[in-house]
Amino acid sequence: MEKKYAGIITIGDELLIGQVIDTNSSWIAQQLNQVGILVKKRLAVGDNRTDIWEALDSMMNETDLILITGGLGPTADDITKPLLCDYFGGKMIMHQETLEHVEHIFQHILKRPMIERNILQAQVPDVCTVLKNEKGTAPGMLFEKNNTRIIAMPGVPHEMKWIMHNHVLPNIPNWYSTGFIIHKTLLTAGIGESFLAEKIKDIEESLPEHIKLAYLPNYGMVRLRLSAWGIDKTTLEKDVDNYFNLLKIRTENDLVTDEDETMEQVIGRLLTSRKQTLVTAESCTGGYIAHLLSKHAGSSVFFKGSIVAYANIIKEELLQVPHNTLITVGAVSKETVTQMVKEVRIKMNADYSIAVSGIMGPGGATAEKPVGMVWIAVASKENVEVKEFHFRFDRERNIGLTAINALNMLRQMIVDNR
Amino acid sequence: MEKKYAGIITIGDELLIGQVIDTNSSWIAQQLNQVGILVKKRLAVGDNRTDIWEALDSMMNETDLILITGGLGPTADDITKPLLCDYFGGKMIMHQETLEHVEHIFQHILKRPMIERNILQAQVPDVCTVLKNEKGTAPGMLFEKNNTRIIAMPGVPHEMKWIMHNHVLPNIPNWYSTGFIIHKTLLTAGIGESFLAEKIKDIEESLPEHIKLAYLPNYGMVRLRLSAWGIDKTTLEKDVDNYFNLLKIRTENDLVTDEDETMEQVIGRLLTSRKQTLVTAESCTGGYIAHLLSKHAGSSVFFKGSIVAYANIIKEELLQVPHNTLITVGAVSKETVTQMVKEVRIKMNADYSIAVSGIMGPGGATAEKPVGMVWIAVASKENVEVKEFHFRFDRERNIGLTAINALNMLRQMIVDNR
Repeated sequence: MEKKYAGIITIGDELLIGQVIDTNSSWIAQQLNQVGILVKKRLAVGDNRTDIWEALDSMMNETDLILITGGLGPTADDITKPLLCDYFGGKMIMHQETLEHVEHIFQHILKRPMIERNILQAQVPDVCTVLKNEKGTAPGMLFEKNNTRIIAMPGVPHEMKWIMHNHVLPNIPNWYSTGFIIHKTLLTAGIGESFLAEKIKDIEESLPEHIKLAYLPNYGMVRLRLSAWGIDKTTLEKDVDNYFNLLKIRTENDLVTDEDETMEQVIGRLLTSRKQTLVTAESCTGGYIAHLLSKHAGSSVFFKGSIVAYANIIKEELLQVPHNTLITVGAVSKETVTQMVKEVRIKMNADYSIAVSGIMGPGGATAEKPVGMVWIAVASKENVEVKEFHFRFDRERNIGLTAINALNMLRQMIVDNR
Repeated sequence: MEKKYAGIITIGDELLIGQVIDTNSSWIAQQLNQVGILVKKRLAVGDNRTDIWEALDSMMNETDLILITGGLGPTADDITKPLLCDYFGGKMIMHQETLEHVEHIFQHILKRPMIERNILQAQVPDVCTVLKNEKGTAPGMLFEKNNTRIIAMPGVPHEMKWIMHNHVLPNIPNWYSTGFIIHKTLLTAGIGESFLAEKIKDIEESLPEHIKLAYLPNYGMVRLRLSAWGIDKTTLEKDVDNYFNLLKIRTENDLVTDEDETMEQVIGRLLTSRKQTLVTAESCTGGYIAHLLSKHAGSSVFFKGSIVAYANIIKEELLQVPHNTLITVGAVSKETVTQMVKEVRIKMNADYSIAVSGIMGPGGATAEKPVGMVWIAVASKENVEVKEFHFRFDRERNIGLTAINALNMLRQMIVDNR
């Protein structure tokens, strides 16, 4: 048993001009890690025969498994499939089962006539194993050469994921003896990366060769990840748990969670277990906090809703912020968010509420209220807490930081049982 | 003058286990394209000396410019900087100006004492040109070898972007004679990729060698992109405009915009120019439509706010959906969204409103109301339009598709001036 390595090749000109962000690679990497395959490299190339060929060459020597996404859709430039056919020395044939599947999709789901290029989707190299794609018209293909398995999949995320779940991941244990990879992560908030590093320096230095520590900073939070590889699962788990507990105890004051979950998932878990509810009143985040809370399945148990009061008139009419407050101290003020947080909690009859108002930029700043200035309030039945923040970034990042800090303030209020 | 090629290397174990999505690469690619540099490949490798070294080797022969991000933070495993020093045959020295900058950040901004690893950030190989990083403690570095320029930057997005804007992009015209790259894109909605392809087949086939067409499908929309490269800017623009106009005319019925803008930006532009306003009442999207509208600068001109009525009781109390309606036909019904869309528009006194209610999954489905069933309503002062949709995907994608289809219904209502 030895370490098994994978390479990921994503194909498409759009990746090289930056018009789309590649989310497939990281998803594939995550899945492979969970079944014990280490990803050695990820390569993105354009719809160009030479570049794709060289990408394959460069990975054939170094990896046991190559996953290719993209280049197979009905309007792809007909480069990838013929290239794979040549690379593995085959010829193109019509695959009857795929043809029937494509016909079925057009007759019963799309309810449109098929055209020539849809029929061509059912052609495959005769040297591959066809991996049925229930979610679309382009099938996946499995090739084998020199002990390396090569799998080509369409780039549409939900089609790729279906093929991975049905044809690739379940077969990994049959194809390879991989050993075990374990990751454990914890999330901290409110402490800088270098200070965190200083705090846990001795633990980091004491880690054995087979356990690695990584710092993943994001929006004012730092995630710490231990990754370990080994043959014996029980020993490996014991080793990792041991170091992970040391990290947990050392970071106690800043610890958000010791699970691989997001800040909003922590809130959801806390509220669900306490059978409590949450609502938000958002100005500068414009519904983003509500979106974060509701994007996860099961959120209807604790999240009741939100009033997005982007315009001041909405703050007055729906959240009863006095006109005079908006005139004198303004929308970005302690007084305004305090009223917002109280009113929305009562109006929507929830246990907790969050309110935010700030200047996200690039416009809207004044001499006294610069871009990045935000007031955040959280409230329970008994308490209201209000805090001023100053973020120093662009609009998108300021919105994200406002949301995370608001959620973290609420989290502290919940765990302190205030 | 000839085509100039760049390679992008992103460094970090987190990219290979899929814990983060790489947004740096696509941003860099976008910026380089705009200044006439073509990106040949993008490679992601772990914090591993051999892999980084080989990545550099593989790109040195094929590219004129290599951009490296990551591996330079205060807690990076001290691999990348010493490696670059060795690769380019230098030795590490303390860079006084950077040291003073780091000291300044700690004294005046972070207001915390410096520690050893912060001081180390100011060390650089003596064979590089230091690129000052005003946004952080790790400086950028420029190396030159065999006519290739290699630039290493920290992986934190806003630091990398600052270095690109201040040290890299303005210098491209001094470093290379690149010719010109032009991209023009248009966005369609409501027509499938293969049917669109069939519709414009003859135009696509008539394209000259130096102009390429790409299809970028996303959330029920397809973006078409023409990319062209050439020496003479005027001729190139004329050529591209010519083919672009043909595409515009041919796709007229499904055309959302002929600019490189998103659906919500189109809405924002239309409403801003008409001095009209918009509000939303969201159930299943939980604030996501409001977030899309408000995430762009300038949205306060047309977007007033939203009532996120996630719980049914909020639909009753804040949007006056009759209790009886919720009992008999339910929250996911024509009656409910019709009441929501009317009430929110009047309550928030806006010109237009959007309301959505549906089952995003994985839970919540019944025999009559499967996952992906959504009712969408849009309203103006004079009209209300309501439509039933059935999406067939996962929660995240269903939320996205609901938002895009709701915005597209509203867009049609606005342009039809109803």
